[in-house]
Amino acid sequence: MYNPRILEVRRGVLEKNDLLAQRLRARFNAAGVTVVNLVSSPGAGKTSFLEYTLRNVSEQGLCSAALVGDLATDNDARRLARSGVPVRQIVTGGNCHLEAQMIADHLEEWGLALEDLDLFFIENVGNLVCPASYDLGEHLRIVLLSVTEGEDKPLKYPVMFNSADVTIFTKMDLAAAVEFDRAAATAAVQSVHPGMTILETSAKTGQGMREWLNWLTAFHQSHQL
Amino acid sequence: MYNPRILEVRRGVLEKNDLLAQRLRARFNAAGVTVVNLVSSPGAGKTSFLEYTLRNVSEQGLCSAALVGDLATDNDARRLARSGVPVRQIVTGGNCHLEAQMIADHLEEWGLALEDLDLFFIENVGNLVCPASYDLGEHLRIVLLSVTEGEDKPLKYPVMFNSADVTIFTKMDLAAAVEFDRAAATAAVQSVHPGMTILETSAKTGQGMREWLNWLTAFHQSHQL
Repeated sequence: MYNPRILEVRRGVLEKNDLLAQRLRARFNAAGVTVVNLVSSPGAGKTSFLEYTLRNVSEQGLCSAALVGDLATDNDARRLARSGVPVRQIVTGGNCHLEAQMIADHLEEWGLALEDLDLFFIENVGNLVCPASYDLGEHLRIVLLSVTEGEDKPLKYPVMFNSADVTIFTKMDLAAAVEFDRAAATAAVQSVHPGMTILETSAKTGQGMREWLNWLTAFHQSHQL
Repeated sequence: MYNPRILEVRRGVLEKNDLLAQRLRARFNAAGVTVVNLVSSPGAGKTSFLEYTLRNVSEQGLCSAALVGDLATDNDARRLARSGVPVRQIVTGGNCHLEAQMIADHLEEWGLALEDLDLFFIENVGNLVCPASYDLGEHLRIVLLSVTEGEDKPLKYPVMFNSADVTIFTKMDLAAAVEFDRAAATAAVQSVHPGMTILETSAKTGQGMREWLNWLTAFHQSHQL
């Protein structure tokens, strides 16, 4: 933040958030649930990607639930509820990111039995800046980048791409129409986060989604060992 | 913000920002320059739209300059400099929006003669949340929404669409490929901001850009009366 007073208060908030996130993560670990935090700019396709994922993880024998953040509207929760898994909306009322306290509060109100779950998804507010600084106790932070956004986005939002574990290129069905330069986008990701796993997907055509689901299942299994 | 201490400090920052923005606007008015603040999510096409605009406003006999905000990199300023107009980059170093103080500081360092300009463009950080709260002293706030982002974005980011003066649909050349629902998108805009002007454009094909340039020129002229 530009203002030194806000910087100071924010530092305290981040420390408090980190402590709470650590407690959440310990709770998730004890329950044996793998928690995935999905971040991206608005419109990169988080909800479509998550809807496809929720519908298909059950085929892999996994139980899941999702918590969905938005500034306003519960459109996403209603869309995701069609997948048949438990879904709950957090309306942030203008807040540009989710915080660990919101996750803790909603889990308490929800009364969800974490022990019955294998995977718990958190869809963050669409924003490539603010959510980067807030640990939600997740095990995996997945950043989605749609091919329509431009190959240089990892260079312009380096903190987000650096803090995430995996990059998912979305809307690959539009790659030709927008003349997506895969090599340039990959190089941009690798320059801010060397060695980062990148998967190429389309929730519309299903391209790459099997690979993603296999990757996620393997992560969950190795995480339980 | 979720934290009450931050809320309080932030309220003070916003009041300070608003006062400074008012002073900036008075200065812009005295110089006879119309100031345009471009906001959108990352990758909605602000830089392409601005590049097209800068190249073509001179044909309308108008002098312009641009200040471009980004978290990191000066890619956009380098792209825009090809248009031949004065361009300067603000690297916010992680800040998710521009503030009036940054505009004032950069104008001072730059030594730009505002009196020689007709139009001054500010390209904000790609973010549909935080820039909504920060008046930069602009006369026009233009929000860009690419057809690839989804028709419901105005409902999910109501503060931004409510605070803006005009909505520009961008990447209209992709409308068919993404099955863009113009009626739904228009209804979403109108529901959060009744009567809002909407223009449909593509900086790639030039669709709607003449209409935008005429609209902007007419605004500038009426503003000088």
